[in-house]
Amino acid sequence: MLTSLDLPAALDARLGTVELRRATVADLDSLMALLSDDPISASRGDVASADDAPAYAGALEEILGDPGNDLLVVVDPEGRLVGTMQLTRIPGMARRGSTRLLVEAVRVRSDLRSSGIGGAMMRWVMEVAAPELGSSLVQLTSDAARVDAHRFYERLGFAASHVGFKVRVPGASARAESR
Amino acid sequence: MLTSLDLPAALDARLGTVELRRATVADLDSLMALLSDDPISASRGDVASADDAPAYAGALEEILGDPGNDLLVVVDPEGRLVGTMQLTRIPGMARRGSTRLLVEAVRVRSDLRSSGIGGAMMRWVMEVAAPELGSSLVQLTSDAARVDAHRFYERLGFAASHVGFKVRVPGASARAESR
Repeated sequence: MLTSLDLPAALDARLGTVELRRATVADLDSLMALLSDDPISASRGDVASADDAPAYAGALEEILGDPGNDLLVVVDPEGRLVGTMQLTRIPGMARRGSTRLLVEAVRVRSDLRSSGIGGAMMRWVMEVAAPELGSSLVQLTSDAARVDAHRFYERLGFAASHVGFKVRVPGASARAESR
Repeated sequence: MLTSLDLPAALDARLGTVELRRATVADLDSLMALLSDDPISASRGDVASADDAPAYAGALEEILGDPGNDLLVVVDPEGRLVGTMQLTRIPGMARRGSTRLLVEAVRVRSDLRSSGIGGAMMRWVMEVAAPELGSSLVQLTSDAARVDAHRFYERLGFAASHVGFKVRVPGASARAESR
């Protein structure tokens, strides 16, 4: 949990004012549904299977218990969870000791895309969260197939300056106890 | 500091066995020199200026004090600091609750590139550090201009599957006290 974030916050989107707040264990089913409501995530195994609920619950608990991470959700006026994102604060040496704010797992419910929710989330990250966390750089990676998302980030001022590399490694269970 | 990492470790490179260990404040000048020994970093302001020493010292102290981050250095048989990298362990919901290991600021002294040091560092990350940290995914971003580095990561098994976006944000000092 990033304790210096001032939450909950009200965000203005085209469908009205939505609430941005920290996720809780009560959000687990909605979070799993939101992750699976995306063809790229589903292709990686995020299919909201009940068998996977313990793994997601453990991950949520670990994120909320980590002083450098937070998981946020967006709730619409009817109380439905319509968006989520994870923030990671990363102190670093490069750029004269700049602290970065990494944004991962940005998701908006598929039937509500282009409703201004994602833009409101990202503007809050850039204008509110980054200063609150002492971060002068916001960064994220987006799957190369998400061309619409790339245009969205560029409109917000992000530069596609880097290539994101990933590799799966064997020998580590996804929820190993050791740190 | 990622306390579960078993350090120091011996790495085999073509110039002989080098030592991988955690950075200390005594490494500050060598770390600043290594960052500035790279045209892309230097263009971002990492020029090893004595005026910047307090900012780098504060960043190093914060990285070592953070339970999700670590800064490692590689020392050659003559005791010279020849490489560095930062590791960040990130719990996450995506991919059924996978924990990721982010590698940032990988640097090898310019006159020692192609000596096998970088490969030995990355193999240690994939084969030793990731399992020790319960991470099933290793990820990094590399400046789009670093074409040689991209080939290096692909040879190690990484896929260039993502686009990395960054934006500088105003209103946050690089070394703000708040978290």
